[in-house]
Amino acid sequence: MMFDGRSWRKEARQGMSGIADVAKLAGVSKSTASRALTGAGYVSDATRLRVVAAAAELDYVASTNAVSLATGRTQNIGVIMPYVTRWFFAEVLEGIHDALLQRDLDLTLYDARPGTQGRARIFEQFLARQRFDGLIAVGLEPSDHELERLLAIDRPVVGVVGEGGATSVVAIDDDNVSRRATEHLIGLGHRRIAFVGGGTGDFWSFVDQQRLQGYLETMATAGLSAYAEHAPSPVDLPGGYAAAVDLLAGVRDRPSAIVATCDEVAIGTIVAARRLGIRVPADLSVIGIDNHEYAEMFSLTTLAQQPREQGAAAVELLVEHIRDPGLPPTRLLLQARLMMRSSTAPPPGAGSAAYLDSELGDVL
Amino acid sequence: MMFDGRSWRKEARQGMSGIADVAKLAGVSKSTASRALTGAGYVSDATRLRVVAAAAELDYVASTNAVSLATGRTQNIGVIMPYVTRWFFAEVLEGIHDALLQRDLDLTLYDARPGTQGRARIFEQFLARQRFDGLIAVGLEPSDHELERLLAIDRPVVGVVGEGGATSVVAIDDDNVSRRATEHLIGLGHRRIAFVGGGTGDFWSFVDQQRLQGYLETMATAGLSAYAEHAPSPVDLPGGYAAAVDLLAGVRDRPSAIVATCDEVAIGTIVAARRLGIRVPADLSVIGIDNHEYAEMFSLTTLAQQPREQGAAAVELLVEHIRDPGLPPTRLLLQARLMMRSSTAPPPGAGSAAYLDSELGDVL
Repeated sequence: MMFDGRSWRKEARQGMSGIADVAKLAGVSKSTASRALTGAGYVSDATRLRVVAAAAELDYVASTNAVSLATGRTQNIGVIMPYVTRWFFAEVLEGIHDALLQRDLDLTLYDARPGTQGRARIFEQFLARQRFDGLIAVGLEPSDHELERLLAIDRPVVGVVGEGGATSVVAIDDDNVSRRATEHLIGLGHRRIAFVGGGTGDFWSFVDQQRLQGYLETMATAGLSAYAEHAPSPVDLPGGYAAAVDLLAGVRDRPSAIVATCDEVAIGTIVAARRLGIRVPADLSVIGIDNHEYAEMFSLTTLAQQPREQGAAAVELLVEHIRDPGLPPTRLLLQARLMMRSSTAPPPGAGSAAYLDSELGDVL
Repeated sequence: MMFDGRSWRKEARQGMSGIADVAKLAGVSKSTASRALTGAGYVSDATRLRVVAAAAELDYVASTNAVSLATGRTQNIGVIMPYVTRWFFAEVLEGIHDALLQRDLDLTLYDARPGTQGRARIFEQFLARQRFDGLIAVGLEPSDHELERLLAIDRPVVGVVGEGGATSVVAIDDDNVSRRATEHLIGLGHRRIAFVGGGTGDFWSFVDQQRLQGYLETMATAGLSAYAEHAPSPVDLPGGYAAAVDLLAGVRDRPSAIVATCDEVAIGTIVAARRLGIRVPADLSVIGIDNHEYAEMFSLTTLAQQPREQGAAAVELLVEHIRDPGLPPTRLLLQARLMMRSSTAPPPGAGSAAYLDSELGDVL
């Protein structure tokens, strides 16, 4: 039973109060009571106080539909994202949700998975209804046609992930974050470093393309282009697992280190290495991007981002744009932090046995 | 940049159409056009068709606030759940979302994590606004006080997970599902079988209590009560990992099989076993409940449920209750299906070497 084993009874409510009751108790007209509660039209502070007190005493809650028509505000924010089942997106969603809750705002969720009919309906029908005061788009990456539909919405939009352009955006620097991951491995002495993730199927996210680009440029700068290799994979744990099996199994001259496009792919890679009898980090170093909730369990070295903070910051930005539609767009870049755990070490034969024998040792 | 690297421009919209334009094109009065589009009041089919065609031609979208006031319907469904970052809940959420999308309904999300201030605000303030035509409560398990607040909402409620009582609910039989998992292991010849999950911290979900109960009763029925053991753990992958390390490390007489309260705990257990050098299934059998997206990757034998279908079924039930408030509550029980993979086998020394040597072999 969903409610602690108790029976769920729908009881008739006794004496639910209407606006007329509130007006009567406060000693004002219905229209004055309504104005006082919705903020539409002038009411003296003394009267407003009396009406609000009466409403509280009667447990009266204003019809929000009436309120929103009167004020032109829905008290609701739309959130559109391509996945809710992936760690990063779910975390951003919770960050947005909690920040909205504090501001007394509702959250309407649009789950726009790439390539689905549902996504098409959201763009064609749901967004056009403008049932929100503003929209937060998380890693959306719309097609040209979808972008057109978004442009037609007469509401402020704030992005999470990406560069933003003329809209405000909260993000990390995706190009730079893979650069730092790659430099970390090069600094440890690795030369044969592969990049795992992205580049399969119809949908290759711009974020993963940027991260691959940052990796390739860093390899080139270090004179290691000859060793660069991209193993495409779906951007999730099983995808990383399968790609790593293909990359590592039965190969004599396999990479000694891997930059994964995110922690889920990195963890899949670690699981695959173990399955193949390849020790992490003694035989193979793996670095991720995210600081996923499983990262600690897998002793994963990673570039940590804070998706909840990104979600909360997007709410702050959006509220400012709603208050002042003339506000110029800003780009809020959050810094990813290198979080050293024990999935990275010097390559085999690099003469750092002391480090390899440390208690950090074998991962998983 | 979030939008495929292109610049995001907010362009002035030219000639947005109002209800007056629609009425003019259709050759009817504004109030007739409004009635035709909102469904409030009589309009002939021929007229309605003409108005709808005109609205489509002008790309007119009815103000939903006006619509909802006119019809008394918000065209919006509330969804309240304790977690959005856990697999089961995120899957149910997507199932609900997609079913609502097909019915042209919006989804307002209430993320009510146990023990948070946000949860208190949702119950005290957000639900009372009744900004939805109905509410779906997923694994909510409210306190007495929260239950009171829920009872005060004048909208139909449908539950997912649990027994339901006087409200309709979609669920699997949690007691029975752990019974079947335990019987599967007993059938393979295991005697020393432990149950991992639940029972830590302030929040012990009723679902996990029921699953533990089903396990304990099955052990008793088989005369194995002396071997029964509950290892408490948070209901997630790292929680299962830590609990399994405590349960299995350095113990001479450890269990030969484990029933996990869900797949995340089961997978954490498998990862811990590998870390400890315990082979799955040769030395330890592990069975889960869920069929998590990672289950296949870890070759996990599990009782599979379909959370998306549960979400979609909850939407069907809720819509029926909204249409007919007098409808008696129903309980829709979905059957969990035993999905054999290779994380379970006869116990060590049971003489089934042929099976153990099969290619199913070692997990992970």
